[in-house]
Amino acid sequence: MSRNIVMTVSYDGTTYSGFQSQPSGNTIQDIVETAIHSLTGEQLRIIGSGRTDAGVHARGQVFNFHTESRIPQERWALAMNTRLPDDIVILEAWEAPEAFHARHSAKRKTYRYTIDRRKFPDVFSRMYAFHHPTPLQVGAMREALTHLIGEHDFTSFTSIQSTQPHHVRTIFEAWLEEDGPLLYLFVTGNGFLYNMVRIIAGTMMWVGEGKLAPADIPAMLAAVDRTCAGPTAMAHGLMLWNVEYPAE
Amino acid sequence: MSRNIVMTVSYDGTTYSGFQSQPSGNTIQDIVETAIHSLTGEQLRIIGSGRTDAGVHARGQVFNFHTESRIPQERWALAMNTRLPDDIVILEAWEAPEAFHARHSAKRKTYRYTIDRRKFPDVFSRMYAFHHPTPLQVGAMREALTHLIGEHDFTSFTSIQSTQPHHVRTIFEAWLEEDGPLLYLFVTGNGFLYNMVRIIAGTMMWVGEGKLAPADIPAMLAAVDRTCAGPTAMAHGLMLWNVEYPAE
Repeated sequence: MSRNIVMTVSYDGTTYSGFQSQPSGNTIQDIVETAIHSLTGEQLRIIGSGRTDAGVHARGQVFNFHTESRIPQERWALAMNTRLPDDIVILEAWEAPEAFHARHSAKRKTYRYTIDRRKFPDVFSRMYAFHHPTPLQVGAMREALTHLIGEHDFTSFTSIQSTQPHHVRTIFEAWLEEDGPLLYLFVTGNGFLYNMVRIIAGTMMWVGEGKLAPADIPAMLAAVDRTCAGPTAMAHGLMLWNVEYPAE
Repeated sequence: MSRNIVMTVSYDGTTYSGFQSQPSGNTIQDIVETAIHSLTGEQLRIIGSGRTDAGVHARGQVFNFHTESRIPQERWALAMNTRLPDDIVILEAWEAPEAFHARHSAKRKTYRYTIDRRKFPDVFSRMYAFHHPTPLQVGAMREALTHLIGEHDFTSFTSIQSTQPHHVRTIFEAWLEEDGPLLYLFVTGNGFLYNMVRIIAGTMMWVGEGKLAPADIPAMLAAVDRTCAGPTAMAHGLMLWNVEYPAE
């Protein structure tokens, strides 16, 4: 009987074309599947909790796959890491019930967007933070975020290239944390549309700059029109923070 | 009359052959001098506070140079940064008295060595931290560091390739800071020999692993013999933290 193996993976997305496999290659999924093939001899497809765009990072992406391999649960992570490049690291691996599905079973997903407010960018976080040296009104951004909480049609906050038939999603929490010059935007929801967190981040920066008011957000959601929201923030500031599943 | 301009520079040393210019090129100094040439038209040499090895980073390296340029002090940093690659950033620039010399005038220099104690390396700090997943006895390391404080002949803690005629240096402070899985070793002194902080870091890791006892350090210093100390820790964990000068 095949086993259902789940892994948490962290990656630096800088040089990759995103998580999900595509014809032009160079994706996290391709590299992980190659490592599994090298380890078990199986040519199989992994199921990610969702895509991440080109250049987006992950602290805790989750995927699963079904394997005939008898490798003990506690040996998977190290065995995979010795076969992966150093910008992709498996943090944990465990065996799940047959029905577990990294995408369908996910209940909550959290993303973090990082803004570096220093006068000049910090070289050590330049690939993981968006540099925004001019002042941001954090209080206004906090107020604007409250309008995104709850169930909404997020058409205004997704790329017009979205292929999803429905754009209603629920944001459970959205908050800002300050750590000296760094400003972190966290957003937790039941699922996210294509570019959704990046458009939220770009819109929040416009609010912080005073180009938009917090009270503009409800009309922006109601418009159901991408042109009504702010810009799509650059990919390198974004990180898939974690994915939560129901306790078994 | 020429002006003496001082700059603080931060760099990610990952892809460079160190700070100081050398025939094979690809050094921080070469790149900075090229940027100055592009800005002022002058072909000049900068004076660094000291070298950093290939792969070593700097949060706050300091250099100075004499220029005929009339660029106002407050414009230098931005003008330089637009001409530098994104892994080299000028943080500050100011005009100093004629006698200021980045190396000779330096009073204290601090280095930081970063150890990542996670089971698997953190992808986002993999270029800035040495991965050491097995346990380290931090208390023993702290005790060992106390034996390095003061004026000593550090011949045992420098590369046999050192070209310095004298190996007596003073360490003012040496301490460890813990931040979750990260362990930082800070060392402040009046000057450092070739590979000195990396050999101190490598020796401290041997103490942490129990391969050496804190009480072994005095004999190691007294031996005046490189083979008596621990290994040279890898370059990528090291960062020149700051350089201090007397108040004018």
